[in-house]
Amino acid sequence: MKYSKLLGKTAKNDSKGSKFASQRYLTRGGFIKESTAGRYSFLPLGWRVHEKIKAIVKDEMDKTGAQEMLVPTLHPLEFWEETNRTNSVGFELMTVKDRREAFFALGGTAEEMFVDVVRNLHLSYRDLPFTIYQFSNKFRDELRARGGLLRLREFVMKDGYSFHTDKEDFENEYQVMSDAYARMYKRIGLDALKVAADNGYIGGEYCHEFQVECDLGEGRFFVSEDGSYCAHEDIATFTRDNKNLDEPLQKYQVVDAVRGTTMEDGVKFHNLPLWRQIKDVLYATETGKLVLAITRGDLDINEIKLAHVVSALSLRPASVEEVKSLGSEPGFISPVGLAGKVTIVADPSLRTTVNAFGGANALNKDAININIDRDYTADIEADIAMAQDGFLSENGKSLLIEKKGIEVGNIFQLGLHYSTKMKDANFADSAGGQTPYYMGCYGFGLARTLATVVEKHHDDKGIIWPASIAPFAVHLVSLPGAEDFATSLYEELLKADIEVLWDDRSVSAGVKFADADLIGIPIRLVVSSRNGEKVEWKNRADSKSTLMNREDVLKKLLITE
Amino acid sequence: MKYSKLLGKTAKNDSKGSKFASQRYLTRGGFIKESTAGRYSFLPLGWRVHEKIKAIVKDEMDKTGAQEMLVPTLHPLEFWEETNRTNSVGFELMTVKDRREAFFALGGTAEEMFVDVVRNLHLSYRDLPFTIYQFSNKFRDELRARGGLLRLREFVMKDGYSFHTDKEDFENEYQVMSDAYARMYKRIGLDALKVAADNGYIGGEYCHEFQVECDLGEGRFFVSEDGSYCAHEDIATFTRDNKNLDEPLQKYQVVDAVRGTTMEDGVKFHNLPLWRQIKDVLYATETGKLVLAITRGDLDINEIKLAHVVSALSLRPASVEEVKSLGSEPGFISPVGLAGKVTIVADPSLRTTVNAFGGANALNKDAININIDRDYTADIEADIAMAQDGFLSENGKSLLIEKKGIEVGNIFQLGLHYSTKMKDANFADSAGGQTPYYMGCYGFGLARTLATVVEKHHDDKGIIWPASIAPFAVHLVSLPGAEDFATSLYEELLKADIEVLWDDRSVSAGVKFADADLIGIPIRLVVSSRNGEKVEWKNRADSKSTLMNREDVLKKLLITE
Repeated sequence: MKYSKLLGKTAKNDSKGSKFASQRYLTRGGFIKESTAGRYSFLPLGWRVHEKIKAIVKDEMDKTGAQEMLVPTLHPLEFWEETNRTNSVGFELMTVKDRREAFFALGGTAEEMFVDVVRNLHLSYRDLPFTIYQFSNKFRDELRARGGLLRLREFVMKDGYSFHTDKEDFENEYQVMSDAYARMYKRIGLDALKVAADNGYIGGEYCHEFQVECDLGEGRFFVSEDGSYCAHEDIATFTRDNKNLDEPLQKYQVVDAVRGTTMEDGVKFHNLPLWRQIKDVLYATETGKLVLAITRGDLDINEIKLAHVVSALSLRPASVEEVKSLGSEPGFISPVGLAGKVTIVADPSLRTTVNAFGGANALNKDAININIDRDYTADIEADIAMAQDGFLSENGKSLLIEKKGIEVGNIFQLGLHYSTKMKDANFADSAGGQTPYYMGCYGFGLARTLATVVEKHHDDKGIIWPASIAPFAVHLVSLPGAEDFATSLYEELLKADIEVLWDDRSVSAGVKFADADLIGIPIRLVVSSRNGEKVEWKNRADSKSTLMNREDVLKKLLITE
Repeated sequence: MKYSKLLGKTAKNDSKGSKFASQRYLTRGGFIKESTAGRYSFLPLGWRVHEKIKAIVKDEMDKTGAQEMLVPTLHPLEFWEETNRTNSVGFELMTVKDRREAFFALGGTAEEMFVDVVRNLHLSYRDLPFTIYQFSNKFRDELRARGGLLRLREFVMKDGYSFHTDKEDFENEYQVMSDAYARMYKRIGLDALKVAADNGYIGGEYCHEFQVECDLGEGRFFVSEDGSYCAHEDIATFTRDNKNLDEPLQKYQVVDAVRGTTMEDGVKFHNLPLWRQIKDVLYATETGKLVLAITRGDLDINEIKLAHVVSALSLRPASVEEVKSLGSEPGFISPVGLAGKVTIVADPSLRTTVNAFGGANALNKDAININIDRDYTADIEADIAMAQDGFLSENGKSLLIEKKGIEVGNIFQLGLHYSTKMKDANFADSAGGQTPYYMGCYGFGLARTLATVVEKHHDDKGIIWPASIAPFAVHLVSLPGAEDFATSLYEELLKADIEVLWDDRSVSAGVKFADADLIGIPIRLVVSSRNGEKVEWKNRADSKSTLMNREDVLKKLLITE
């Protein structure tokens, strides 16, 4: 391809000063163009990379025996009502009405559609197991789009679904898919960690995210130093260290406490350590039910954990009025005396201290020597606290390290979640009965993965593409006086089926070199009158270049291929 | 692929008795599954065919130098307002609102999106010309879905757009695209005729459809016997033969005519030939303006031609009230005396007769010896009549033959239609000014093309796929006693990269043969204990089979590849 003919050249001031290298370089490099916030066009250069990633994903999926197909983008809304996902999805569903007044959801994921196809085929155990997948546009009505391709409102996703007779059969495929994903990321040039995660809006009992470590990533997870444990913050467990269990219990006492309403104010006022304080946070669920979450003062509440524990779809901080409706006061809430008025959920960390202090449900009144069981009881005791860097792992063997990452894929156990909610999602079992499918689901976002590669493979001049997904294998730069040589080399490369981008423009060497660095094709070849019949070979990732004979260049390229 | 593992097997009673072979066989063969009316899932077998067609289209596009890219599916509605297509599109646009109250159209075609990308790149004449294209889902809120994949509400379309400095440069690319399309259809196994057509909702001045002859097709067009002319009925021209121009003009006269209101009633009552009657049809435009279309009685009005002539977006037959508002009467309308009250559009055929007869704008009153110029004049004289089989071509050299066909693609001159309607859709020209892009547009519907192949390539047992797009190259059928032989042959074929579907099920030979015929893979290989070490080779299109040695089978397959 001649660069002069390529639609979408490099641009100088088109980065909007984003903190994300991928957004800056992909935009400036002429790979993508923003349409509206969160919706991008892929220009030809970017599309080449996108399609190379797609080919790798397809290849690895097909190697496992998975079968590609396609379901419509517009999903009859009644399917989402069957599974109650019109209410529960984590992303806002976009809906559309046709001229016949039929309602459709714009597919965000396609579990219902695949189940609908399968249930209508009336299969038997002999047809199982199978994994089917598609590449198709997904729509998410995200509140905030972010970082160019990192959080989009529309993107191509590979979504796969597996159907099984039972749990054991599913677990085998879950491992097969996990291994296939590992191979995909490796081929694409990413080190992806498999992180146990919360299953969120998809349903099912467990899932894993593939996270690529990145300080700008939105994902927060914990890895144990010994490498045996890796989990997303929303499910990460840890050992709560004992603080003062050897102290004898002291008498519960209410004291005057003219102080501010923060945890820090409590610590200062009583001159006691933070861990000795009880942290009380009052939430309201989507139905208005009040939940009092309490934990040791040095820990934070994880709202996702809490929502699961109380089976809420969403939680919001309670209002001042709601706090007062319990006969309490903001900044002075206490579980003592609230039994029956509110669901009290206690983190197990409250059993690592005695003689705690905290509010007393009245303005400027605190209690000291508060003890669980004696002074209050919880309706639910469960892990609702956030792990932190340096905490001991749950098995007590290793410290947890906090990591930030970009989620580039995920795999889900769905179990019977969809097949029991949707009518007739059964297969004829070997005993002559009807059994619901045991299912799994496997997602892979192509655009985000592409952007993540750029986050991991760039320097201050531009992108450094891994060869496997580079838009072209070779960037040929011709300088004045070498036009004929360039033409003949270009044609020779094309004939040898080497993907080459030839910068054939009449611009300065400096501009061409800067553009080559920005675009990031792995191998740069320069021909110039100064170099005569020699070709200058430079790898994008290296600083040194080598002068080579033309035949050697060809030989080396064919080996590199 | 083992057939036992394939999702979507043949089904007996899943054809809904459609008159379309493609709908029956693709459904029964396990290629597709209806989701809701006009929306289909492609099962793995069907998707393989779909993707092979896509690969051929991509290959031919790329060979012309066209560049693949992708724009979002959700188009900001303001673009469609810029080009006034929210009002003028021939299909119903589906729109959706996001949580931030932004409105989007679900892309039906993507002219505005591509123009928007290009205008934001601020190009100069040096960047031109270029052709860019995408494969993406298109949405049409069709009133009636039809014939399985033949008229869908959602489908993958290849849509390409070319940008030029001027008309001459565009015309060159238009021919390049036309040639590329011809090669695509040939490779896919279709004889497609290039038919001059009406540009419809796309805009621009001319366009061509690619039509595959088919009695069940919705397209009607005319080809001249000498092959020099081929045009859609909506633009087909013809020579109007002279009838009685040598008769002297007779006196205009109003007579009593107690008759019915049809053309036939007039012929019977006056005992005169149909061609001597004037056909008057009153229409109302979308703005309520009344148009009286008149033509020779033996011709029909073509409403598309008429709409163009009066620059209407749509036409509907006028109501009885509207007829009476002109002081006329249904069944007795006449242009005589209506000048100034209504726009009169006369077909040139009215100049091939004299002394015509017809209504007299009053109940049971006719006029005889009506003559144009003398008794009435038209506001517009233009071709508004429908061509018919056997008419003489406009150049008078050859007869027209009526054909029915399926439209499998189209190419459009857009000219300056979009670039002048959309703001800043200009390039920096060589004189230092800004000039609007001269454009073309090139569409190719993949699913409809796939269905058309089946309409053209089937027999009463099932599909007969052209090898170029067959889901598999070989259908291996193993009969009892030959399992080991089948396994080893299957593995040998896989190793030789021959796409093979192995029917490994425990069902009867009759079922396997019937399924192989239905599915339509070009080559069937049968191994059985009866055949020993020999393999029975049968082409799907032939009735005879041949017993061959295994090595010869391999050799022949590798040549066929």
